[in-house]
Amino acid sequence: MNLSEMNIRRRDMAVSDPAVVEHMLLSSRVGYLGLVDGDVPYVVPLNFLWHRNRDAIYIHGAQDGRKASLMSIQPKATFTVSQELGTMANPIPAKTDTAYTSVMVFGRISLIEDLDEKTEILEAMLAKYVPGYYSRPLSPQHVMSYISNAKSSVRVWALSADQITAKRHEESMSTLFYPGRTQVQDVLQQTKGNA
Amino acid sequence: MNLSEMNIRRRDMAVSDPAVVEHMLLSSRVGYLGLVDGDVPYVVPLNFLWHRNRDAIYIHGAQDGRKASLMSIQPKATFTVSQELGTMANPIPAKTDTAYTSVMVFGRISLIEDLDEKTEILEAMLAKYVPGYYSRPLSPQHVMSYISNAKSSVRVWALSADQITAKRHEESMSTLFYPGRTQVQDVLQQTKGNA
Repeated sequence: MNLSEMNIRRRDMAVSDPAVVEHMLLSSRVGYLGLVDGDVPYVVPLNFLWHRNRDAIYIHGAQDGRKASLMSIQPKATFTVSQELGTMANPIPAKTDTAYTSVMVFGRISLIEDLDEKTEILEAMLAKYVPGYYSRPLSPQHVMSYISNAKSSVRVWALSADQITAKRHEESMSTLFYPGRTQVQDVLQQTKGNA
Repeated sequence: MNLSEMNIRRRDMAVSDPAVVEHMLLSSRVGYLGLVDGDVPYVVPLNFLWHRNRDAIYIHGAQDGRKASLMSIQPKATFTVSQELGTMANPIPAKTDTAYTSVMVFGRISLIEDLDEKTEILEAMLAKYVPGYYSRPLSPQHVMSYISNAKSSVRVWALSADQITAKRHEESMSTLFYPGRTQVQDVLQQTKGNA
């Protein structure tokens, strides 16, 4: 995995542990695919599959539509997942901040044409999103006739990760806001602690 | 609100009710800002504020860093929020699908320089993310000296919504997958229903 700290201003928040990135990419249900339409960005939420051995994000979708058409014109893409843990409250308003982990995968999109690879990916997506639901594995024959509800053939794309960056901001879990928490209460607590 | 169905392939999923969009934009804690860096998309998760009367997304952040620099060069931006309700299982693998609502806001980013507007926005963000925490409102004087933990001045930007598109896929809540649900069980159920 090409995990880089390049372009991260706050080096203290850069994630250098690939296991944190793997966890985020394997446990997130939804990621945000960024594409470019001329000079206009396009961001679409998608279910996805992270393939550990290939360093690739797999997605699927209809062969028609804006996403498919943009990917065929301009394959450079970014895929972002994040997990928000909550807001860290602070008696000083400027220090109120968010606790989160985020991962950005930069790379190129390619269409998967190979039937066996398509079958493997669709099978793995079913195992991720409806684990244990199907009693039998998908057959390539089934995938061949895999027609979506929209009557548009299902395509599978891979985003090969050229570079991954990740950030984590988890300075102080004990300051996470909950309904009813107040500045007055926190200041009193601090005063006690310092006495 | 300029809510459009343009570019939505699946017209049956297009949201035409502005109240659904308002709900999504006001209740979501995190949105994904899409920017363009040359021909490479950049997607960053952010806390944000939707301002109903101005049809604008407000965000804040450090004056330095990649996001701030990209926005100053190329103001065209997209902001996406989504809510995933779960996966709808179907005995036919190709019909397994996701239930979700998503909103995309397309527009232009501008830097907010006016101190009163900045104060109003930062105040409203605190009210959204740590409601009831502070006993007194922010003063413009406080905002003037508002320095983040990173020692970089806090900036506020507005993304004015030129166009909004929204999609909703909620065909069949009764088919939502849960651990232990199986194809066999669903087929039996269908057979009973048809008997």
